[in-house]
Amino acid sequence: MSLLVVGSVAFDALETPFGKTDKIIGGSATFISLAASYFTKNSNLVAVVGGDFLKSDIKMMQEHGINTNGLQIKENEKSFFWSGKYHNDMNTRDTLVTELNVLGDFDPIIPDEYQNCEYLMLGNLAPSVQKTVIQRLHKRPKLIMMDTMNFWMNVALTDLMDVLTMVDVLSINDEEARQLAKEYSLVKAAKKILTMGPKILIIKKGEHGALLFKENQVFFAPALPLEDVFDPTGAGDTFAGGFIGYLASTKDTSFKNMKRAIIYGSAMASFCVEKFGTERLQHLSKDELDSRVQEFVDLVQFEISLG
Amino acid sequence: MSLLVVGSVAFDALETPFGKTDKIIGGSATFISLAASYFTKNSNLVAVVGGDFLKSDIKMMQEHGINTNGLQIKENEKSFFWSGKYHNDMNTRDTLVTELNVLGDFDPIIPDEYQNCEYLMLGNLAPSVQKTVIQRLHKRPKLIMMDTMNFWMNVALTDLMDVLTMVDVLSINDEEARQLAKEYSLVKAAKKILTMGPKILIIKKGEHGALLFKENQVFFAPALPLEDVFDPTGAGDTFAGGFIGYLASTKDTSFKNMKRAIIYGSAMASFCVEKFGTERLQHLSKDELDSRVQEFVDLVQFEISLG
Repeated sequence: MSLLVVGSVAFDALETPFGKTDKIIGGSATFISLAASYFTKNSNLVAVVGGDFLKSDIKMMQEHGINTNGLQIKENEKSFFWSGKYHNDMNTRDTLVTELNVLGDFDPIIPDEYQNCEYLMLGNLAPSVQKTVIQRLHKRPKLIMMDTMNFWMNVALTDLMDVLTMVDVLSINDEEARQLAKEYSLVKAAKKILTMGPKILIIKKGEHGALLFKENQVFFAPALPLEDVFDPTGAGDTFAGGFIGYLASTKDTSFKNMKRAIIYGSAMASFCVEKFGTERLQHLSKDELDSRVQEFVDLVQFEISLG
Repeated sequence: MSLLVVGSVAFDALETPFGKTDKIIGGSATFISLAASYFTKNSNLVAVVGGDFLKSDIKMMQEHGINTNGLQIKENEKSFFWSGKYHNDMNTRDTLVTELNVLGDFDPIIPDEYQNCEYLMLGNLAPSVQKTVIQRLHKRPKLIMMDTMNFWMNVALTDLMDVLTMVDVLSINDEEARQLAKEYSLVKAAKKILTMGPKILIIKKGEHGALLFKENQVFFAPALPLEDVFDPTGAGDTFAGGFIGYLASTKDTSFKNMKRAIIYGSAMASFCVEKFGTERLQHLSKDELDSRVQEFVDLVQFEISLG
């Protein structure tokens, strides 16, 4: 089934305790699309970059089967740029630079060939832009998933609450869930958020895994315990990309299949953090992915006979 | 198989955002024994209390099948007393009072009838006392498990390292594992700690679950997502008690069975935090326990066919 991914395609410059990079390809839609490309070859990108963006990076995405006809290139402008430095614990980071550039007035134009997409993933963007995307689709996709962040809760809460009523799946981290619901308990927060529009809520807890909530059902997937997290940038988007890519490829939105999708998303995220940026996501084999998923199986599966 | 539990039996006075208690029964050996009592009725307690301790609390333990013949009662002294206040997030707490009292010169006398125990659980105590217990057993138990805390790493590291070489299973929390191994990564910390003596390491992560390490194998059990954590006191000991009680009752120390034991321990801990102190652990039914374990199954089990 066709997947439409809308979000940022950008430059990141990263510094971690393991090293630093110059400007490298980043952005929510980049990580989402790359992760999803390991599950579906029918994915379509809507984003905007400047004339400074590398043709080789666009080619790399195309080689992963990502349709980039919806990638606007504003030749006389600059790409969105974010630079950050991670602390030693890798859980906290300082933003050094944020240059919105082309993203400041991003108008998400949907090419005709992208209409009728059945799965829509809205990466982290201004809620008003996310809403515009939904409104510009002639037919509502079978499943709409969105990501957001605390920034939009602070500066565009009304818009955010509006777009929440239009989506099926919301993916946010634990602190964002607490802020959105004004509840410390994640179980209580999830119950509240599920009254705001989304029928499915994914709470990402970073190294502590992810929770999937639907009505009274809950599923938990751990993060893989790793010796080193080299660079966490994009892990959440990679997780979301693996999740929606798996759903789109299996055409099954049952809770049972979403559990599998969460595991695939977690496996993709575990690769993402092994190298800087998208480096590890650019070259993955099916064997590597299968063997990583097997590690998740081994990590959590147990046999108990009750009664 | 017979289980020997050595640790503190004490008074706690607790304050959480949900309320506060007067002096109630607490102590590592209390939580461990009570949790284990749901799996094995052949458990034996070694601890010390003062003349102020309640006969009704001793009777309550006996009614759970715990042999209290090894509980020393020093009539003219006072029981160990700890008082603490939890912050709103329930993950941090301030110690208000610590009165060692009888625990200050605790000499762990092992009654003859306790010799030949096959499972030994050493609750958090001075490492020198833990070592004395092992030395006083005529025959080495089949499995020795110990708990400890950062306090002993700070004040009695040599003794602690010594006793570590004598045990099979170490159970500590994530911060303690990092401190003991001087490694931030829990995977790296686990590898180091497994060279210090224990063949099995359990790292407790509170609301984020627990990790079980053995050689190159790792298993993860989540904590149950709860609407409210009423009082986390004793949760780690309850977890350990469920774990060792299940092992003792099944007489199986394979890694596969330890996975099940971790789930039972996690289930017991999830009950513990629902009320103050041992309140919830005093009255549990087999149906309640089975249904709680089923919640863990539902929480983490998924089906994926690979290859």
